[in-house]
Amino acid sequence: MRKKKGLLIIMDGLGDRPIPEFEGKTPLEAAYTPHMDKLAQNGICGGVYPICAGLPVGTDVGHLHIFGYNSDLVYRGRGPLEALSAGIELADGDVAFRGNFATIDDNNIVVDRRAGRIREGTNELASALNGMQLSNGVKVLVKELTEHRVAVVLRREGLSDAITTTDPGTGEEGEKICHPTGIDNTVEAQDTANALLEFTQKCHEILKNHPLNKQRQENNLYPANIILTRGAGMKTAMPSIYKRDGIRAVCIAGDQTVGGIAHLAGMDYYQEESFTGSFDTNLHGKGLKAIEFINSGKYDWIVIHCKATDLAGHDSQPQRKKEYIEKVDIMIGEILSHIDLHECYVSITADHSTPCCLKDHSGDSVPTLISGGDVLADCVMNYNERSCREGILNNLTANDIYHLQLSYMGFMKKRGS
Amino acid sequence: MRKKKGLLIIMDGLGDRPIPEFEGKTPLEAAYTPHMDKLAQNGICGGVYPICAGLPVGTDVGHLHIFGYNSDLVYRGRGPLEALSAGIELADGDVAFRGNFATIDDNNIVVDRRAGRIREGTNELASALNGMQLSNGVKVLVKELTEHRVAVVLRREGLSDAITTTDPGTGEEGEKICHPTGIDNTVEAQDTANALLEFTQKCHEILKNHPLNKQRQENNLYPANIILTRGAGMKTAMPSIYKRDGIRAVCIAGDQTVGGIAHLAGMDYYQEESFTGSFDTNLHGKGLKAIEFINSGKYDWIVIHCKATDLAGHDSQPQRKKEYIEKVDIMIGEILSHIDLHECYVSITADHSTPCCLKDHSGDSVPTLISGGDVLADCVMNYNERSCREGILNNLTANDIYHLQLSYMGFMKKRGS
Repeated sequence: MRKKKGLLIIMDGLGDRPIPEFEGKTPLEAAYTPHMDKLAQNGICGGVYPICAGLPVGTDVGHLHIFGYNSDLVYRGRGPLEALSAGIELADGDVAFRGNFATIDDNNIVVDRRAGRIREGTNELASALNGMQLSNGVKVLVKELTEHRVAVVLRREGLSDAITTTDPGTGEEGEKICHPTGIDNTVEAQDTANALLEFTQKCHEILKNHPLNKQRQENNLYPANIILTRGAGMKTAMPSIYKRDGIRAVCIAGDQTVGGIAHLAGMDYYQEESFTGSFDTNLHGKGLKAIEFINSGKYDWIVIHCKATDLAGHDSQPQRKKEYIEKVDIMIGEILSHIDLHECYVSITADHSTPCCLKDHSGDSVPTLISGGDVLADCVMNYNERSCREGILNNLTANDIYHLQLSYMGFMKKRGS
Repeated sequence: MRKKKGLLIIMDGLGDRPIPEFEGKTPLEAAYTPHMDKLAQNGICGGVYPICAGLPVGTDVGHLHIFGYNSDLVYRGRGPLEALSAGIELADGDVAFRGNFATIDDNNIVVDRRAGRIREGTNELASALNGMQLSNGVKVLVKELTEHRVAVVLRREGLSDAITTTDPGTGEEGEKICHPTGIDNTVEAQDTANALLEFTQKCHEILKNHPLNKQRQENNLYPANIILTRGAGMKTAMPSIYKRDGIRAVCIAGDQTVGGIAHLAGMDYYQEESFTGSFDTNLHGKGLKAIEFINSGKYDWIVIHCKATDLAGHDSQPQRKKEYIEKVDIMIGEILSHIDLHECYVSITADHSTPCCLKDHSGDSVPTLISGGDVLADCVMNYNERSCREGILNNLTANDIYHLQLSYMGFMKKRGS
């Protein structure tokens, strides 16, 4: 079977709902995206569900399904993924958490879930906590991630990930941090919950007195005086994308969580300092790197991840979402002028929708297209939520889209003969 | 529940991709098919996946799913099917292979995978090999099938189908035939691999000196001097279509592999010598036989299989594919003028796509329609890959289409009450 290459552009949290100030258009509908539209005109489109209709997913689960995995079978929570992203080598029995640097007041009320989206100095704060020894013999590993994000690992034999965590939730501020408890009645779970409580208390003591936070307060910035934890989990085994499907894949991303998922899938992960995982990321540089990878022959499947669409959704900033989408379109235009669509299929999708009106992930389908040389185009003329749903991929799932890409590229093994 | 009849026409490997010489149309789009289009206008259509999006299937697996089976549960390889097609009664423990009469040179390099698509004399060649006794007590059964195809069975107690075979692959010529080995470390697998090797060597000695091959060489034809084997398997149990669903079904086909699948499904298999399984098959005769079966009351479900669309795809002959489709359309016209669509639903589908640009099966969807008396028609006006995908059956699977046909015919059992 002939082999071709594939490029996939993922805009995190892209899908949205009607925005009043855009006269009912979504940010993607309102954006000027001639290159995405050209791909739609020469491709096949659909509103695609990450797993199934109506089920919202996280970035982790969404990406696993985009990469052809069934998260139910291979995935046990975000904690281990964040640890991997942070470069922490997990041992069997470690319990890992995803964490946020956050701001609480004297009554343990969460004032800001992201400590004002802190970006500088989190490595110092993490270092001040890393290696902490708790009274029940547990050692704590702490390592900063992108922006306010941080990985936390509890290490000792006889721990359990069947515990509740300290983060009161992903919704509004103003709630009290939670008291961790065991979900089952085992000694291991109680012991782990106690360790997490003790870590959280000591963490607050250390952080609130940290010079960096004193200075933030002087500058009228939220102090990063606590780590909120969630997503407790232990590590699992997962086949690499190469072993499973024979494709050599690379993920170009600034966001370390996505980098961690790529790592988990055995894909290469390419990052530069200018890939910030935010609005100011170097999209031009990502495009150049993708062109280089496509033309080098080193990889079969090249994935570019663009994060800020999701941030704009969470922060309910439709205008910013629209502008960022237009920047991604310019990147796509640059790539298209340097590659041959008869040799490399180009696809666009999202891991989930993050509508500005919800400030959170929704169970809506995500606009998706597959374009290239011999794709029998459907009637869709524009790449956006509304138009794509008229396409022939409508109601398929992220796993389906992965398999269709591989089928075009010539990497799907025939069942039967 | 009232009962109606159903006629299903399967065009093997029908689906295709844009053909440059047809100005980007597929062979089916380029073909003049007024009768298929009429059925589409009065029916419901879709681009249908044999199993799921992007997964290419073989003729065997594709037909099992068209007949309502889940191949994962009932099917263990092509070998036993070919033996059944050839009329070999498999005993428990037999290991069966599908084979090709092929041409190798003195260095065991495959020169032609199909011995110039040999059609005459394969019964003589098979007879010269059938009944061969090998040194480890294995008896070999050999029986010719359509054209270059042949069934091979190794018979002795204590054999295994966990072995690699001698066919270097379905791709290009120029590769050496493979040395069979056990896939697992059992004595049974090693013993079976040794038997297959010995058979292959003896087979080459006998065939290369066979008068029929001497004559082929004098006529500048490729000698059929080896049998390449693949698809090792043992027999499995499978409920008949009648036992499962209560329908009396018949399959009209020239291709013996499809005949074997019909046989496996407990359907009657109707064949005439003029049904060649190739471009020159007697489509008029197939149509007449279908009309007879529909009007006789002997069967509930009548299936006509037409093979040459697949051959044209494998040989990358879009013009021939188009012309053959037009002949099938004429056959459909003849049938329609002799049956009552209020008494017999008519459906058209394919087991998989075989795009001319790939020369192999793809994971694309296949154009599918169900038409007849009380079907609530959708908006599709033409039967082809592009138009059908706009229809209401889009993205369903072959199993879904089977169940819909049975539902219209009145044979689906109600779940609940």
